[in-house]
Amino acid sequence: MSFVNQNYTNKLDNVFYKIGQKVNLFSKNNPNTQIISLGIGDVTRPFSDKLTNIMVNALLEQQFASTFKGYPPEQGYLFLREKIKERYKTFNVNLSVDEIFIGNGIGCDIANILDMFQDYTPLIIEPTYPAYFASSVLNGKTPHVLNATKENDFCVLPNVVEPKQYLIYLCSPNNPTGYTYTKKQLKEWIDFANKTNSIILLDLAYEFFIQEKLPHTTYTIAGAKKCVIEFCSFSKMSGFTNLRCSYTIIPKAIKRENVNLNSSFLKRQLTKFNGVPYFVQVGAEYVLSTQGQIEQQKNIDYYKNNVKIICYYLSKLKLDFVSSKSTPYVWLKCPKGKSSWQFFNDLLNNCAVIVVPGCGFGKCGEGYVRLSGFNSMENTIKACEEIYKYMIKEKCTT
Amino acid sequence: MSFVNQNYTNKLDNVFYKIGQKVNLFSKNNPNTQIISLGIGDVTRPFSDKLTNIMVNALLEQQFASTFKGYPPEQGYLFLREKIKERYKTFNVNLSVDEIFIGNGIGCDIANILDMFQDYTPLIIEPTYPAYFASSVLNGKTPHVLNATKENDFCVLPNVVEPKQYLIYLCSPNNPTGYTYTKKQLKEWIDFANKTNSIILLDLAYEFFIQEKLPHTTYTIAGAKKCVIEFCSFSKMSGFTNLRCSYTIIPKAIKRENVNLNSSFLKRQLTKFNGVPYFVQVGAEYVLSTQGQIEQQKNIDYYKNNVKIICYYLSKLKLDFVSSKSTPYVWLKCPKGKSSWQFFNDLLNNCAVIVVPGCGFGKCGEGYVRLSGFNSMENTIKACEEIYKYMIKEKCTT
Repeated sequence: MSFVNQNYTNKLDNVFYKIGQKVNLFSKNNPNTQIISLGIGDVTRPFSDKLTNIMVNALLEQQFASTFKGYPPEQGYLFLREKIKERYKTFNVNLSVDEIFIGNGIGCDIANILDMFQDYTPLIIEPTYPAYFASSVLNGKTPHVLNATKENDFCVLPNVVEPKQYLIYLCSPNNPTGYTYTKKQLKEWIDFANKTNSIILLDLAYEFFIQEKLPHTTYTIAGAKKCVIEFCSFSKMSGFTNLRCSYTIIPKAIKRENVNLNSSFLKRQLTKFNGVPYFVQVGAEYVLSTQGQIEQQKNIDYYKNNVKIICYYLSKLKLDFVSSKSTPYVWLKCPKGKSSWQFFNDLLNNCAVIVVPGCGFGKCGEGYVRLSGFNSMENTIKACEEIYKYMIKEKCTT
Repeated sequence: MSFVNQNYTNKLDNVFYKIGQKVNLFSKNNPNTQIISLGIGDVTRPFSDKLTNIMVNALLEQQFASTFKGYPPEQGYLFLREKIKERYKTFNVNLSVDEIFIGNGIGCDIANILDMFQDYTPLIIEPTYPAYFASSVLNGKTPHVLNATKENDFCVLPNVVEPKQYLIYLCSPNNPTGYTYTKKQLKEWIDFANKTNSIILLDLAYEFFIQEKLPHTTYTIAGAKKCVIEFCSFSKMSGFTNLRCSYTIIPKAIKRENVNLNSSFLKRQLTKFNGVPYFVQVGAEYVLSTQGQIEQQKNIDYYKNNVKIICYYLSKLKLDFVSSKSTPYVWLKCPKGKSSWQFFNDLLNNCAVIVVPGCGFGKCGEGYVRLSGFNSMENTIKACEEIYKYMIKEKCTT
């Protein structure tokens, strides 16, 4: 027995932290070189005038006693939860506003939800968002890891899983591969979860990027409301990575061992969370309006066009990669059997382009890198040109 | 062994939630009665023009690609951490910016810090902020509770505590009693903590209200940097309850069982937290500037004047209460041996005034209520007049 949580002594490489260190060193040695980042999945498109004005006006309310806002409600303002409820209606899903929790980012929400669980086995399909693994380890758990690889078309289904009670992390569209589950595949996971009394934590951070006729939610699927918690965010959808706003859906029908998880999470939020600022939620409400959605779609199309550009260059080089119509990312196999970090170094040192080493998304991501479409079109083209020239020179085409 | 965390099934009355229900019912039955709240400790003074402008300008940066901000740094922007470091210098304390973590509220920070600990006994001095007890229980711990009462002048010192390794919650100035520790008393707690390998979690939410020559930090006291984590917030100081911004100081010298708690918490934040919005931190930086401090002091003086008004009326009634020069609160013994909720009901139903039942701050708070100075002066006077009239009528004076 230990006074402190010894799990925090586990070595957990934060790939983005390590990238930062390498980039800083490169900058220092090459002060005049422009570095282009196709690395961290961070948005770059500025806010529309309308969105900015609405948020500024909401902020100005703090200047007058009559409109001054104090503590925000822990579960989120009703106006935003109503708007999210409306959005789900467009998917033919009926939610109660009590099933919606406003949070300050999926990163926090999907880690905080672990407070609700005690003796569980995390089931993680890699490559994926590294925080699932890291937060499990910090909680003293040993995740059961499945690999999404070229061999299984980057899609893992429950038929390969030993039936046990898991906390199942699904990310669709997947970060980094872009793989997006079909309704039939999600149904398989839901049936598996209900059969094994497991819970699915579905990370929908890239839900707004879904273009094909693929599901934006599981709640149209029978049984989903008994086992799926959905995590969504305004970060990538509307450029809110700085503002921090997300929402978590915990259906009231989810119970395990007579514990209602919706009630548990409400208790958690009332005790350990104090809500999200008013004007951030006002901005988020606008983003879900008809006009807001049109604006967001423009940005998403812009990022997706960058993905097309990246794919165009990689295709010309006949490199081995995957992407999809529903993702801002490209998942590229390193040429010549290079390791993720080797290829990262090559691209940084020869092209001044930052990518993310695939090993940061799990062991099976070794030998891959992730490229993102979140930069400007000009920078994306420039980066691709540099990569193209370098690869031709190094004869890195197949 | 249980899949879900059964500690969440513990009954935890949220006193503020229950107040809300009672007030809603009263409003419904008395639609034309103006209710005045001397209840929840939530700020009401609007932002200054300067603070608002600075934050609006920071928000406007999101409208342009060249100034657009993405993910905030998990530990907080350096400019704000530098400013906090400067503030500590005015107390003759040298901190490194790495010892400062920007968070989104003490409520979150002081609950999140529990992730760093495993087998510990919480030591809680009641009456106090109820989240210490609640978050301990949700973490499966049975707090060791000590009572601050009239008999010990609302001050508990470690000489009455069995030496054991604890997580010690101190709140100074205390919410709700207003009791503020002297340097000598804090030294006793620090010596006790170092002798027992305990850790002190010092909640300084009301630090800016400290008026007498009492310590704003423990780090001028020998040994403090080996055992004290300090939690501060912009909520009450600068009216940021809606904006959510706080800071936690974890000295690098704090180690237990060879685990460095500063490193652990950094790992936690990198994994489970995504930072606080840019313009909120810009606002917080301004608040710590010379001009910002002058503005904040005006608001704090305003709230304290309300406390004086409340004390004036209660003194006229010769009621039994405590407060201090360093608190926005008054801790009042219910007259005629009434229970906290009885007296709450009396004041709501007869005066249309909301207070907080003392039992919400711990069992020993039963028979007390807390009154807050956070309303407008006009409303505070009106509420006091109503209370005065009612108490005279009911012969509730001593």
